[in-house]
Amino acid sequence: MIPEVERILKEKGELIEKEIERVIPRKGIRNLNDAVWYHLDSGGKRIRPVLAILTCESLGGDVNKVLKFAAACELLHNWLLIHDDIQDGDKIRRDKPAVWVKYGIDHGINIGDFMSERVYNLIINSDIDDNTKLKLISEIVETCSKTAEGQALDMNLRKNNDPKESDYMEMIELKTAWYLTLPMVGGSIIADKPELTGKIKEFGMKAGPAFQMADDLLDLTKGKGRGEIGSDIREGKRSIMVVHCSSKCESKEKNKLFEILNKPREKTSKEDISYIKKLFEKYGSLDYAKNKAKSLIEESKKITKGMPEKLRRILDQFAEYLVERKK
Amino acid sequence: MIPEVERILKEKGELIEKEIERVIPRKGIRNLNDAVWYHLDSGGKRIRPVLAILTCESLGGDVNKVLKFAAACELLHNWLLIHDDIQDGDKIRRDKPAVWVKYGIDHGINIGDFMSERVYNLIINSDIDDNTKLKLISEIVETCSKTAEGQALDMNLRKNNDPKESDYMEMIELKTAWYLTLPMVGGSIIADKPELTGKIKEFGMKAGPAFQMADDLLDLTKGKGRGEIGSDIREGKRSIMVVHCSSKCESKEKNKLFEILNKPREKTSKEDISYIKKLFEKYGSLDYAKNKAKSLIEESKKITKGMPEKLRRILDQFAEYLVERKK
Repeated sequence: MIPEVERILKEKGELIEKEIERVIPRKGIRNLNDAVWYHLDSGGKRIRPVLAILTCESLGGDVNKVLKFAAACELLHNWLLIHDDIQDGDKIRRDKPAVWVKYGIDHGINIGDFMSERVYNLIINSDIDDNTKLKLISEIVETCSKTAEGQALDMNLRKNNDPKESDYMEMIELKTAWYLTLPMVGGSIIADKPELTGKIKEFGMKAGPAFQMADDLLDLTKGKGRGEIGSDIREGKRSIMVVHCSSKCESKEKNKLFEILNKPREKTSKEDISYIKKLFEKYGSLDYAKNKAKSLIEESKKITKGMPEKLRRILDQFAEYLVERKK
Repeated sequence: MIPEVERILKEKGELIEKEIERVIPRKGIRNLNDAVWYHLDSGGKRIRPVLAILTCESLGGDVNKVLKFAAACELLHNWLLIHDDIQDGDKIRRDKPAVWVKYGIDHGINIGDFMSERVYNLIINSDIDDNTKLKLISEIVETCSKTAEGQALDMNLRKNNDPKESDYMEMIELKTAWYLTLPMVGGSIIADKPELTGKIKEFGMKAGPAFQMADDLLDLTKGKGRGEIGSDIREGKRSIMVVHCSSKCESKEKNKLFEILNKPREKTSKEDISYIKKLFEKYGSLDYAKNKAKSLIEESKKITKGMPEKLRRILDQFAEYLVERKK
């Protein structure tokens, strides 16, 4: 995956940025245009636009026609992060103050709202026919709706002291898998291979949850650029490890686990995080998460088997990358 | 206006609600579907969907084809209110706790995000051709983008202790006029009279600001269903009266005016509100606002003169209603 991604980023990275600049100029209204670019310039892996381009290219589609959609995927990902950070109370994003910390919650909401609309502007301005535009818009609407449903389930789950794996799976399929899958779905639509969208979504419903589990694990190792290790624990997230561990541990340990998770984030100590990490280790929850993610990737490879060779190779490499990435 | 509005509400009110129910069922995910309907059931004037229907009907368009767009206008208006209440810290909406007060800020943001996407779902599902759908989507995107720009200007203006009328006008044209105009623009597009959208927007850029000025005034008389009179003062809003008064009053009074406006809302006393109200009276700022709104309505009538007779009559009545309404 990595060489392919680097090639596309080198060839098209700047073009994607230019497309976003066209619908949100760098200069404009204070606390709006500047704030969008404060966030976008903070980096991110740009994996979604690259994936849209690679999918379209591998299916013989015109790469120039997918650029605006690719930019839309990046913009969509980023407005979701801006609202997500407010909802989760995350103060650091990509090692810098989150948008809402720098600009306030009021502006933070508005900045995300603005970006969410400009996403559609990119599609409307695309050099593709009306019917294809509508298909893409329809996929984006469905994706954002599902993501919001997943977000509601996630927030509800954080009040649940007996979360089941089925609750967790339902939540991450909605919250994570849909919008990870969108770039590939759109890439195949623009390449005029709409018959592949069903299979791509099936693939995404395996790779997306695997990605989320890898993300859950990363919180305890690299901290995901959010300033500290264990930030998911501080915000009371019901990760795959929490779900697994709470089903295995003793009732006294379970009580303490949820007592820590349910604390306001500023009251969570380093000892609390260390306690939970050790509990995960004691009950093999970290290994469980790793193995579960790996087995989902194996399942995803069964789905890609029937796909055109070039696309299959990209999706398989992408799936591997998702669980092996280090940040 | 009133009899026409009542007729449409009686004939179509339930159908509009059914259209929204189709994209957001009453039963679904907790803290999401129920929350949307908690807000929608709290009422509101439903003036926007009625206006979309009346515009389309008056231009000979098929009323059945405009219902989903009409519902989209109502949904759009309501998600903007939900996010607006968080941004402004308004705790009461339509005499009930605002969504964010009942469900929390985290869910409040997500509920609005969800609704903002379902707006587009209504258009996608409409019984109109692809090109018309895209035209409507494009108008909605532009409207929401302009509204967000106006929202940013509004928040910026609240930090400005020397606001000019030109700043105020720029802000309300973006924040209020665009999304008040959308129902009429869409109604004319569905009636296949796109040549009228330019003139309708010109009309809206007069009627919209007049509506906002009437709204500014209502805050000091009826409290707009937000629990108390003077809620705009509590949140430090730079209303047309503030802009006018601060340009006329003495420097000592101006200092006190902004000292009160800049206080955290919970520190604003009834005496503070009464002081500002009296200052407005002393400098004729309430009359100034009333007259300015009326003169904008007169200007709007010059614009409607060239329009088809049936539409002209509706828009003129609507403009009158906007400044004469009591809530």
